[in-house]
Amino acid sequence: MARILITSGPTRQYIDPVRFLSNASSGRMGCSLAAAAIQAGHDVIIISGPVEIEYPPQAQVEYVVTTDEMLQAAEKLFPLCHGVIGVAAPCDYKPQHTATSKISKTGHPISLLLMETPDIIATLGSKKTPRQWAVGFALETDDPRFRALRKMETKNCDLMVLNSPSAIYSHQNEVEVFNSRGKILAQLRGPKTELGQQIFNLIEKHLIRNPDFQ
Amino acid sequence: MARILITSGPTRQYIDPVRFLSNASSGRMGCSLAAAAIQAGHDVIIISGPVEIEYPPQAQVEYVVTTDEMLQAAEKLFPLCHGVIGVAAPCDYKPQHTATSKISKTGHPISLLLMETPDIIATLGSKKTPRQWAVGFALETDDPRFRALRKMETKNCDLMVLNSPSAIYSHQNEVEVFNSRGKILAQLRGPKTELGQQIFNLIEKHLIRNPDFQ
Repeated sequence: MARILITSGPTRQYIDPVRFLSNASSGRMGCSLAAAAIQAGHDVIIISGPVEIEYPPQAQVEYVVTTDEMLQAAEKLFPLCHGVIGVAAPCDYKPQHTATSKISKTGHPISLLLMETPDIIATLGSKKTPRQWAVGFALETDDPRFRALRKMETKNCDLMVLNSPSAIYSHQNEVEVFNSRGKILAQLRGPKTELGQQIFNLIEKHLIRNPDFQ
Repeated sequence: MARILITSGPTRQYIDPVRFLSNASSGRMGCSLAAAAIQAGHDVIIISGPVEIEYPPQAQVEYVVTTDEMLQAAEKLFPLCHGVIGVAAPCDYKPQHTATSKISKTGHPISLLLMETPDIIATLGSKKTPRQWAVGFALETDDPRFRALRKMETKNCDLMVLNSPSAIYSHQNEVEVFNSRGKILAQLRGPKTELGQQIFNLIEKHLIRNPDFQ
């Protein structure tokens, strides 16, 4: 039995009290991975951005809004866990300033300076012990396989799941799973509920049951 | 029996294929107003941005993503309707350019120029015939009543509902309803499902059954 941390859903970076930067991540893949892990008898802790779906009641869920909040929660919880599945899509840019009042339209354009947010999986990857594992997710529109492998390297992950860009609009997904040597372990396609189970089976086989990580 | 157009939910303005500007509008108030209107025997057409909730099956629903798409659909459908309830929270800024590829992090800030989008209710308000009515919704953090009345005037609305900023995060809402002369018709508070019914009762009484609009 392993204790598994799952980051899930989007984060939001507010420009003013009403408007924010985000993405269409729904939390469905995180939910499906959590369900598969619980089904296999593991303990699951989810750190989730704002989503409408309901996570399995057996999971401990901590809700956050911003990327900094997600990182803070992840840094606190990861040392208690055997591994992390980083399926969240954290907002990786935030406005330099958040206006305290709703910005009123004036008829003129406004200029926004966006700063990069900290990388959650890269931060956890840099801190993991030899017994801990990390699974990253990548979504790229250009050179997807090359970029996924670069992310595996720079984020110090043990498996990388490459999502198709079409995934974020849909209940369906199409993924490739790479091990840390860049080998394609599987090419999977189907409803997110089923893919979560299949991806979790690979995590179970290659990481959770792998003596290197026990 | 009236044919009623309801705009509902948020819109999104994409910065690149993954990231967008939006707000936390859930479509719940739109759904609740639609249910009340259908219950009262009216025909309902909903133009909705991306939401997770399900609208009443008796409503005709047209889904859009951006503010320009919502405006285009509204301009097409409004001439067929007796009135419009503008409860959507359209994104009122859009990036000057949308990148065709996902923007990669470089370690440096990026600068974004945001242009104002067209105002949907103001556009419909400027085109409505003497027999058509328009209900606007406002959400303001500063000088809310003053700004709500200014919006009534500039958008040529017949009723204006002033939302509390706390509404967008929650299933609860707290609103004030003004008529076109600026009189407060009602101060309401409660779950969005119930408020939709109460607001719709005011629309029914002051607009749908009003001989000026028949």
